[in-house]
This record gives sequence, C-alpha cells and structure tokens, in this order.
Amino acid sequence: MTQETLELTELVAARDFDAVSGWLAEHGALDIAEELPRLAPTDQAVVFRLLAKDRALAVFEAVDPVHQQQLIDALADESVHELFLHLDADDRVRLLDEMPAAVASRLLANLPDDARENTNRLLGYTEESVGRTMSPRYISIRGNQTAADALARIRRAGLRPRELLVLPITDDQRTLLGVVDLPELVAADSSTRVSDLARAETYSVRVDEDQERGARLIQEADLVALPVVDTEDRLVGVLTVDDAMEVIEEEETEDIQRAGGVEPLGLPYMQAGVFLLARKRAVWLLILIVAAVATVNVLEFFEETLEAVVALALFIPLLIDTGGNSGSQAATVVIRSMAVGEVRFRDLPRILHRELRVGLLLGLMLGAIGFPIVWAFYGVDFAMVISATLLVICTWASFAGGILPVLAKRINIDPAVVSAPVITTLVDATGLIIYFLIARAVLGI
Amino acid sequence: MTQETLELTELVAARDFDAVSGWLAEHGALDIAEELPRLAPTDQAVVFRLLAKDRALAVFEAVDPVHQQQLIDALADESVHELFLHLDADDRVRLLDEMPAAVASRLLANLPDDARENTNRLLGYTEESVGRTMSPRYISIRGNQTAADALARIRRAGLRPRELLVLPITDDQRTLLGVVDLPELVAADSSTRVSDLARAETYSVRVDEDQERGARLIQEADLVALPVVDTEDRLVGVLTVDDAMEVIEEEETEDIQRAGGVEPLGLPYMQAGVFLLARKRAVWLLILIVAAVATVNVLEFFEETLEAVVALALFIPLLIDTGGNSGSQAATVVIRSMAVGEVRFRDLPRILHRELRVGLLLGLMLGAIGFPIVWAFYGVDFAMVISATLLVICTWASFAGGILPVLAKRINIDPAVVSAPVITTLVDATGLIIYFLIARAVLGI
Repeated sequence: MTQETLELTELVAARDFDAVSGWLAEHGALDIAEELPRLAPTDQAVVFRLLAKDRALAVFEAVDPVHQQQLIDALADESVHELFLHLDADDRVRLLDEMPAAVASRLLANLPDDARENTNRLLGYTEESVGRTMSPRYISIRGNQTAADALARIRRAGLRPRELLVLPITDDQRTLLGVVDLPELVAADSSTRVSDLARAETYSVRVDEDQERGARLIQEADLVALPVVDTEDRLVGVLTVDDAMEVIEEEETEDIQRAGGVEPLGLPYMQAGVFLLARKRAVWLLILIVAAVATVNVLEFFEETLEAVVALALFIPLLIDTGGNSGSQAATVVIRSMAVGEVRFRDLPRILHRELRVGLLLGLMLGAIGFPIVWAFYGVDFAMVISATLLVICTWASFAGGILPVLAKRINIDPAVVSAPVITTLVDATGLIIYFLIARAVLGI
Repeated sequence: MTQETLELTELVAARDFDAVSGWLAEHGALDIAEELPRLAPTDQAVVFRLLAKDRALAVFEAVDPVHQQQLIDALADESVHELFLHLDADDRVRLLDEMPAAVASRLLANLPDDARENTNRLLGYTEESVGRTMSPRYISIRGNQTAADALARIRRAGLRPRELLVLPITDDQRTLLGVVDLPELVAADSSTRVSDLARAETYSVRVDEDQERGARLIQEADLVALPVVDTEDRLVGVLTVDDAMEVIEEEETEDIQRAGGVEPLGLPYMQAGVFLLARKRAVWLLILIVAAVATVNVLEFFEETLEAVVALALFIPLLIDTGGNSGSQAATVVIRSMAVGEVRFRDLPRILHRELRVGLLLGLMLGAIGFPIVWAFYGVDFAMVISATLLVICTWASFAGGILPVLAKRINIDPAVVSAPVITTLVDATGLIIYFLIARAVLGI
C-alpha cells in the first residue's frame, strides 16, 4: 500500500533502486514516460538504464521530443545510437529538429546507410509539410497480383505493423492507383486479384501539402493511414493515424493559445522558460494595450459629460465587460465551426443574420433584468441609459464577434487571432461611444 | 470550367439533375457529405437517391448524426432500413440518440436479430461511456493457437477491416490476456504460436469508463484500436481510432466553447437555432454580469476619489483590459497543459512561481513603456499611478489566471469554466481596488 502510493520521484530521491525497479515493473511504458521528465537529467539516465531493452525503446518513444533530447544528453553514446536507430524515421526527424546541429549530425552519421537515407529524405521536406511526418517505408502492390502473391510479398518485406495500415496499389511507375486493406487480403480467396479488393474511394495527400490537411483528411474519412504522393502522383510514403492525431493536437494547441492571446509556445508549458513565456505573451499584450489607448481617447472626448455626471463612470467596467463577453462568445463559436470545417466564407450572410438576432435576444434579456435594479438605486433615467446600452452593446458585440473571424480568414489571417482578447478590445472603445451617446441623449447633458 | 465552379446548391436550384449526377461523379464521398446538408431536406433525398448503393452508404456514414436524421426523415422507409442495417453498431447508436423515440424504436425493430442485439447492447451503456462508442463485434484468438490457425479463424469470421485493427488474445472465459497485430500474424511462420507474437504492452480500457479516457489512451500510446473489457476483465468490444478522434474532437469543442464563456452547444453551429444559441450564452452572461456588479460597488466606494480627479476614469478600461488579458493568457496556457495531461495538481507550487515571475516581467515591461507616455500627457504623478498599477495588475492577474484553473480541477470543476471570461471579471474588481489605492497614495487624495 505505502509502496504503491510512493511516487517515482520519491523513490529516486531515497536512492532506493530496488524499489525503483519494482515501480518500473508495475507501471506501463506510458506511465514511466510521464514520470521520467520529473527527475533530474542524470537520474533520468540512471532509471532509464534499469529498463530492459525493448521496454526502454517503448518508453523512449512515448517521451516527447524535448525530453527525449534531455535523455540523449544524459545517456552514454552507444545506447543513444541504439535507441536512435530503432525509432521510426519520422520520430527520428522530430527528435533531430530539437537538437543542436553538431549532436544531430553525429547521430545521423552513425546510422546504417538505409536508415540514414530514409531520415535524410524526410529532412528534405519543409517543416509542417506531410513529408516531414510521413513514414518513408511502405509496401506497394500491383493490381493484377493475386491476394496470395500480395500476402507473400508483404511477408518478405519485413515492415512494421504501422507501415502496413494501408496497402497502396501502384503501377510500374509507382503511380498510385488505389488502396487495399490487409484484412481484405487475408479474408479473400487466394486467387482473387488485388484490384477486385480495392476500396471504392481512394484518398491520398501530396507530400508538399500542409500536414494538417493530411491529418484532417484521415480524421474526416475515418482512415487509419493515407498514401502520400509527389506532384506526379507517384507514391512516396504513408501518413499514419498516430501522427495525424499528434498533428491535430499541436494545431489545436496553437489555436487555443492564439484564442487566449498567446503566441503559440511550441514547447510544453513546463519546459518553456519564464522569459520565453513572457515574450510569447508580450507581443499581444502590447498590441492590445495600444488598441486600448482608443478607450482613453473616447473617454477624454466625453470628459465633460463624465464631469457633469461622475456616476456614469461606475458602470463603465460592467458595460464593457458584458460587451467583451458577448463578443468573445460569438467569436468562440464561429471560430470553432470554421476550424472543424462546418462554416465557410459563403455562410457569412447567414452568420451575420443569426448573430444579430442572438445578440438582440441577449441584450433584451440583460436590459430587462437590469432596468428595475438600476431604477431602484439610481433612478429611472439611469436605468434607461444602462438598459439601452446593454441592448445595443450586446447586439453590436455579437455581430462583430461573429463576423470578424470570417473576414480575417478571408484575407488569410488565422481566425483564432481575432478572438476573445482582440474582439474585447475592439468592442470596448465602440461600446464606450455607444454608452456616452445614449447617456447624453437620455440625460440631456 | 463554369461547370466545375458551380456549387451543388446551384445545380439543384436549377433542377438540372444531369448536371447534379455529373457533379456527384466528380466528387468524393466526403465532399458530397459536406454539401448535402446545405440543401433543403427534400432536395437532399432527391440527390441522395442519385447515388449508387455503396457510395450512398459511404456518404451517409460521412454525414454527421444531426444531418443523418434529416436525411432519414426525408427518405422512404425501405432505403432507410437498408442504410441503417449497414451502419456500424456504434454509428447506429449515435444516430438513434438524435431521433424521436418512436422513429428509433421502429428502426430498431426492423433490424435482423443479431444486429438488433448488438445495437441494444451498446444502448445499455451510459452516455459518454466507452461502451457507447465501441464496436461490439471483434475477434478473439487463443494464445496457444498457431499463426496459421488464427488466420483461418479470421478468414471465417467475416468481420470488417476496422474490427480487425487489433486482435485480442483471450482464454476460455474471454479474459483478456494480450493483443497481437494482424501484420505480425501474416508475417510470422505459420507454426508460430500466437502468444509468441503478442505485443510487449497490453493496453485496455473498461467499458464503463469515460470515453475520453479510452480515446486519450489510444492517442498517447499511438494505437489504432484498444480492447474493451468489463469489470471482470472479460473482452466485450473494441474501441477504434476513428471513434477516438471523434470523441477527442467533441471534447475539445466543449472545452473551447466553455473557455469562450459558452455552454457546449452539442450541435453544429449552423444547426443550432437562434434560441438555443442565446440560451447557451445567456447563462454565462448572467453569471458574469452579476459578478461584474462588484465593479460598480468598488467604484461607488471610491466615488469621492473619482470626483476629486475625474481623469482617473479615463484609464479604467485600459487598465482592466490589460489585467483581463494577462489573466486570460495565463489561464489559457495552464488549461491547455492540463488538458493534454502535462500539468497536474502537484505542479501547483511551480506554476505559481512561474506565473508570478512572468506577470512581474510583463508588468515591468508595460509599466516602463507607459511611464514616459503618460508623463508627457498627464504629468509625473499620473504616470507613477498608471505604471505602478500596470505592474501590480499584471502580476496579480497572471498569478490568478495560472492558479484558478488548477484549483478548479482539484474540486472537480472543469478548468475550462474558469478561463478567459471568468478570470477577466474576477480580475476587474480587484484591479480597480489596486488602481484606486495606488492613486490615493500617490496623489494624496
């Protein structure tokens, strides 16, 4: 009981390596990969060496590239080369991207010829392209082969299971003609021709396309792997679903961070230094504070009105917060439907129409609730001003929040950029103008 | 050229069904599934009937459940039963969830016995559980079988490719002992025993667990399918990666919507009615506006200070916006690292320490930039007030934004709930107190 609740970190701190071995035996590769980075780098190497060879590889693969690099630094050279060789080519490339150039080229130089060639080929594609994350090892079979011949070929090829998740059918020029699934080959009569077993729809992706495009295609078409072709439609690799999931997770992290006004970190939070974290946020804070200077100008413009009725100032935060919140709500919903491919530019008129009505409904609700409350404390004139302002601000903010992300995307700006913080700041200055114009009219200042 | 740029909607509007057939022939199932819901329901049925049988099924599977239901309403009964039968059991269950009970039970009643039994078994599990989204059809093989025997068994079973993505090894009581991959069986010598081909690590998930847990395990361990077991560790189904991706996308959509202050819609944006959209936002707007009443109270408390120096009001929006933005930034980054499993409760002291330093750095930067500018226009005293307030507010907001999501999760509140809008509103009232206390002290009011 006490044994089980002890963390790996505590066992290592106590230098009780028998207990550490026990802990490792009781935990899966994923758990170990999660705990390992919490240790000091030299301790990581010590613990790592306690693992049997095949488990060590499984753990290493489950560790993310930043931490893989820490481990590599701490381990002795032979075991590093061994580990590096057994990684998939695309995982190797991801790890190389994290390393100092000198270490990277030494590791590459120590690979056997074929593995080095595969790795270098992937390194030749631009970052974020399908080529960087595909597997360069694949099998291709001919349409006129029989199922039995194709299976024999697969047996001889000696590929890993993930390299056989899809079996592309090609001609002599490696042109992609279709795909077939291994279970179909296994289940088929041995004399059936491969072309008769091909799937009805052949999806593929170009090697130079954005990796997110390939990943989303895998997701939308419910695939486990996708053939990758060059500009002449010739097979060059296979993109598998595990890499697609990773790509999508990274993209979503970027979108979420942008939506929160943070430039994508590109690193796990705990790995990013304080200065990096500050720098990634400073850009947006600065842009937003410059934009917020507009609110100072608006208030300066209305300073006489404000001096005449100082109580108007009391409601400024509440009104601009509400505007900001309804703008963010609209932007959040619309940005997400764009990200999952549900909404496009041509839907703009419909979005506009919906958001106007939603905003109006919300404004009516808040105005109606606020009216009696403000009346009780500040009189009927004030109640009219606040309620009318809530109504107009909610409508305007929902409208702006719904429309701006769509327009941004149209001019090739990431819609996530014009979400919550930007919308809030934009709606603030305009909201204040609305507030003071209504106040002047109603209060007759 | 003109033909190709015409949208399906335009062709249908022109009642040019030859052109529609041409368009359908030129587009993949995914494209068709995307365009179909843009048509009126009766037109959807007309277009759908133009598709050949196997393509119709592929298109139907690619349409999301809400739109599947529209189509079912519009199609005649026989073709509906046909389509319904050919869906996977878990897709059938998802569609049934969307339907009126009467239609659902009629569809169920018309299924052949075994399909109905499979479907009903899934319907017996609670919503959001692994049981609801797994495939109840699977193959299980014995460890002491030879590879050749296992392959023969797979051939006889007549399962679909996605039901063979993982091959669980069980004993006579259906207890899960391990897993083996089909490619390993194919590549192995025919007399090799299955147990010798089993994977080193056996991952599985319990049928009553949250489906997100199963999906995340598939993602983290780079799997394509996962055996599902009951409380006695007996095999009951298989969870596949395509369903895992869908589960993760839905969860991320919910998180993103909550982070934007919107209760999860549970429907595609364009399908949700205006009243539903308004209702999902109204809750949060109301909660936030009630919280924002605190800002009115704070300003009322400092009304004398405000009357003495009305110019203090000019900076209120800028200061609270900046506080809100740095709070949102911290919350966004921390919430995301919790969602991807990088940060946990025990990391709280480290998060606290980092966010304090990041906030201080950002506050120093903004304060230093603001000082000369405010000095030039409003004098040195004002410059001191604004700079000092920026410094304190940024530090405090980053601290609050970093810590609140972690605390929320500790008491089982979805961390996404305490993100941008909530943090902004909380930081506003406290930010105003900081501002006026500093102003009183510096200006000696």
